[in-house]
Amino acid sequence: MRVDGTPYRTIWLGDDRATVEIIDQTRLPHCFEIVRLTSLEDAAHAIRDMLVRGAPLIGATAAYGMALAMREDSTDAGLKNAYTILMATRPTAVNLRWALDDMVARLRPEAADARIELAYARAAAVCDEDVAINSAIGDHGLEIIRTIHETRTGDGPVNILTHCNAGWLATVDWGTALAPIYKAHDAGIPLHVWADETRPRNQGGALTAWELGRHGVSHAVIADNAGGHMMQHGLVDLCITGTDRTAATGDVANKIGTYLKALAAHDNGVPFYVGLPSPTIDWSITDGVRDIPIEERGAEEVTHVTGKTQSGNIATVQLTPDGSAAANYAFDVTPARLVTGLITERGVCPATRDGLKGLFPELASAN
Amino acid sequence: MRVDGTPYRTIWLGDDRATVEIIDQTRLPHCFEIVRLTSLEDAAHAIRDMLVRGAPLIGATAAYGMALAMREDSTDAGLKNAYTILMATRPTAVNLRWALDDMVARLRPEAADARIELAYARAAAVCDEDVAINSAIGDHGLEIIRTIHETRTGDGPVNILTHCNAGWLATVDWGTALAPIYKAHDAGIPLHVWADETRPRNQGGALTAWELGRHGVSHAVIADNAGGHMMQHGLVDLCITGTDRTAATGDVANKIGTYLKALAAHDNGVPFYVGLPSPTIDWSITDGVRDIPIEERGAEEVTHVTGKTQSGNIATVQLTPDGSAAANYAFDVTPARLVTGLITERGVCPATRDGLKGLFPELASAN
Repeated sequence: MRVDGTPYRTIWLGDDRATVEIIDQTRLPHCFEIVRLTSLEDAAHAIRDMLVRGAPLIGATAAYGMALAMREDSTDAGLKNAYTILMATRPTAVNLRWALDDMVARLRPEAADARIELAYARAAAVCDEDVAINSAIGDHGLEIIRTIHETRTGDGPVNILTHCNAGWLATVDWGTALAPIYKAHDAGIPLHVWADETRPRNQGGALTAWELGRHGVSHAVIADNAGGHMMQHGLVDLCITGTDRTAATGDVANKIGTYLKALAAHDNGVPFYVGLPSPTIDWSITDGVRDIPIEERGAEEVTHVTGKTQSGNIATVQLTPDGSAAANYAFDVTPARLVTGLITERGVCPATRDGLKGLFPELASAN
Repeated sequence: MRVDGTPYRTIWLGDDRATVEIIDQTRLPHCFEIVRLTSLEDAAHAIRDMLVRGAPLIGATAAYGMALAMREDSTDAGLKNAYTILMATRPTAVNLRWALDDMVARLRPEAADARIELAYARAAAVCDEDVAINSAIGDHGLEIIRTIHETRTGDGPVNILTHCNAGWLATVDWGTALAPIYKAHDAGIPLHVWADETRPRNQGGALTAWELGRHGVSHAVIADNAGGHMMQHGLVDLCITGTDRTAATGDVANKIGTYLKALAAHDNGVPFYVGLPSPTIDWSITDGVRDIPIEERGAEEVTHVTGKTQSGNIATVQLTPDGSAAANYAFDVTPARLVTGLITERGVCPATRDGLKGLFPELASAN
């Protein structure tokens, strides 16, 4: 998507055809900075410390991380080492495992000296496939928004609530939850986005607001606490979120707090959709609440927050009293019963095993 | 309650028997500062700018505000002016109206020169009555916690989630939601409190954590997004919140986000109780979601946050991108159907008209 008029992806190959370049998302929304990755460790750091985040972009970065690793050591031992290091960076994102398994399956049969070129080519293909998937999600989701727009009685924009950042910054381009929004905006449908700030890391208030603003989409940031009230009072026509991992039965693991919004949507008859690229489906999981492991992150993400001071510097401030503990669960699981539909690259389906199986029969039967 | 061993209330008469002293809660949790109120405008400022907050403490401050106003002008015009100014400070808190109506009803029949002394005496009585009410709420709520402790199968503390700050800082002493927790802690029942940070003003992460810590109660701050996941996984035995205004039918207006926690509690079979002093009941309201007006506050509470820098200074940082709008609804209404019970000073009752009427027949019939 565009940043002040210039089209960007979130990850791309540098002019030297070896270095990988990314947007440092920890510096957004106050600084727009490009970071160059030149080694396996650079890529692992970028994923682990969330310079890149969002399941599809994590997968793409892991793929390029394998390519960077092959430049350092393309032996079987090097391949195994790269897989181990990259797999350990984030425990929840299923795309990470998907991308790494795919890379290893393709690279292992090849001679060591053929692996470098192949790895770069495959990483580029992973990126292009992600863009194609997200664009298709956007096209299918656009029709949901168009229908709401055409059937609503009142004037005014279609009001869409989203949680966290499942925009183009979370993918290679377009985004998952935000792809339908960009497509609808570009199609001239009037819309307004309520962006949950998404504590503790504020990806909504920082990243979603930033990318919507740069693309010219009307939006306002709200506290994560606000959505229930707003749904009670007709201020939300539609919720769309992303997913980090979706069970074969339609349970959705996404950023912590998604479940609370789905409960409120259900309680108020507001449609709740999930933008779901098929690589995010974990066909081995049938009970998401029970079986999807939830990452716990450091307490300092809750106790401290970083922002821009009046003088324009980036500063971190402590919110809690000295000595107070904090707990930090990073994701939650929304049971399928609360999800109106899953917007995939092949169309929209119910959040059920049959729904997913109907769109992805070959994937469902392979598992 | 105690602050580093010293007993405090949140509002008290100074040594000169005219000045009113309060704790400046906008400075907590990083600075503990006492502010002296010497005029009607001081009192209005303290309420409007949330140096004091919490329905009962707002009522007590309004009562003392009338006393300070009588020192300046105890004529009928002065009385009317003070009522108008204080009533305009916060639109949602029913205690504000209750306290002001009570003061005016008592002062108006008296001669102007008798009003000053009477106003101070009545304000002191309002404070003492609040302390007695909250202590009684604590005693009744203690029995709920004791029952959970005695009937639970596992080891470990009783885990209680609370939202915002309904502790002693929100009242004159004891608190409403936290009174049962203090009573249970003092009775030796092992417990652990999950304190929702409560964006956008962070009263939970700042004030609840501060007062629990100062009293020695085990606690951890969590993002507002976390409670649903924690209830899904058995990490919460009980929710207790406060209320700013309760409909005659049991609908509860409280800090924005309370409704989302009540939905999650209901979805997971976790008891959800509300600490309810009877002055907070609005007997004229029968549909809380429809009829309780919800205050909208400034966008900067969402876009900016204040905390302590590493060097110990208090600083405000901007969280959102330049140019992004924000919306800031301050309260929401939890429908009575999601509330397990109301803990009042006369005992615990169902969140129904009959429940409230059974405990407060004289108040119900007067409305």
